[in-house]
Amino acid sequence: MNIVFIGAGNLATNLSVALHKAGHTIVQVYSRTDASAQALAKLVDACPITDISQITADADIYILCIADSAIHSLCSSEGFSSVMGQNHGESSKLIIHTAGSIPMDVITSKRRGVLYPMQSFSKQRIIDFTNIPVFIEASNPQDTDLLEKLAYDISDNVYRLSSADRLYLHLAAVFCSNFVNHCYALSDEILSQHNIPFSVMLPLIDEVATKVHTVAPKEAMTGPAVRHDMGVIGKHLQLLTDNPRLQQIYDMMSKSIIND
Amino acid sequence: MNIVFIGAGNLATNLSVALHKAGHTIVQVYSRTDASAQALAKLVDACPITDISQITADADIYILCIADSAIHSLCSSEGFSSVMGQNHGESSKLIIHTAGSIPMDVITSKRRGVLYPMQSFSKQRIIDFTNIPVFIEASNPQDTDLLEKLAYDISDNVYRLSSADRLYLHLAAVFCSNFVNHCYALSDEILSQHNIPFSVMLPLIDEVATKVHTVAPKEAMTGPAVRHDMGVIGKHLQLLTDNPRLQQIYDMMSKSIIND
Repeated sequence: MNIVFIGAGNLATNLSVALHKAGHTIVQVYSRTDASAQALAKLVDACPITDISQITADADIYILCIADSAIHSLCSSEGFSSVMGQNHGESSKLIIHTAGSIPMDVITSKRRGVLYPMQSFSKQRIIDFTNIPVFIEASNPQDTDLLEKLAYDISDNVYRLSSADRLYLHLAAVFCSNFVNHCYALSDEILSQHNIPFSVMLPLIDEVATKVHTVAPKEAMTGPAVRHDMGVIGKHLQLLTDNPRLQQIYDMMSKSIIND
Repeated sequence: MNIVFIGAGNLATNLSVALHKAGHTIVQVYSRTDASAQALAKLVDACPITDISQITADADIYILCIADSAIHSLCSSEGFSSVMGQNHGESSKLIIHTAGSIPMDVITSKRRGVLYPMQSFSKQRIIDFTNIPVFIEASNPQDTDLLEKLAYDISDNVYRLSSADRLYLHLAAVFCSNFVNHCYALSDEILSQHNIPFSVMLPLIDEVATKVHTVAPKEAMTGPAVRHDMGVIGKHLQLLTDNPRLQQIYDMMSKSIIND
């Protein structure tokens, strides 16, 4: 398929590289920033553009990898009207976004959809899509089939999911990735104050992540809170007296584990 | 070396199995519960005991894998006096504990130490010690050398660390393991309410854990909070209206990421 990418960030980079590797043609990469458009276009043999009116109307699918708020203004922009179709009507092209927390209908064209690869992406780290769960949705059955096929070209784990359920999925993902990563960062903060390298934590981090492949997280819990060891919890809270932010998080997480 | 284990829980099981495999002799396993003593003794070819007065005074090292509070009462018990030495004096055996958050000096014998393997252990899951960081401390240089040698028999990552620093290390480990695991559990709670299997999160969990092997956690952060995307954060908080516990955690973690 001939694909246009709108956006050149972390997700756009990883997704376009995966689709390009799978044999699809990335026709154009649009970014407001010339350097970003050029950098990604180079990776996937595409044409970089920074003016939305230069967008081709001949691609099969337009993949939006841009912020929530930007989608609405893009859909109503003059330059994008050839893609959207007359009065957003019959002649529209398939336009999809890639965000977990945005409903499909934020795209106002007739043919619209979502392809949400649930992963934490960085531009600097191109990762293999094979095991990444991809959640798809489209405004008509033909486009659902088309997106499903496209998703299977890059991943073995493809699911159909409504916008309403995808919102909860994304919320759950924030707990499993962003909040988990923040716990790592807070740990790093404590260690660096005592000149202990963060690398000593890696075997523990790996084991905790590996354990939940076979044991439900609640069953896998260890440590002072689940043992209701108020002595250790009190000692830890005292160590954090000079750091109210960490102390508050420690207190709340421990109480939540105790009450779980 | 001839080793006696006091305790037969998650840590005692994993540590005694590792030492047994490394060629050391586990002489006795003590537990208040007969079934626990028997189960672990069987794994490591040891003699199970449930009466502390049956403990041999002839072992080289006594490893305490019991609760904080239990250590003190053990050290002052009649049955343990042959091990502790007269008036806890010169003739004492080397007695060590294995806890992150307890100072070495909670053991009142002359020869005392700590061997803290920093990992989340389960009885049901015997894990390889090679990569587990082991932190050691002893009351005299000879015993420090002896513990270091013993630790290197099971692990490639051995560090000398004072009781004071070990307390901060353990605190940091609670963030990296227990709080991380709790984030997984909260995620599971949200998913199960929408009939989405927790297994869809595993690639994300693995990637987030893998990423911090090469990128500092703070630099690796993605998601709505680090982007200051108040729209998505507000939407997520609204989804959690019926679950104040999760809503409060979401709010606090997001604010902490934003202020980081």
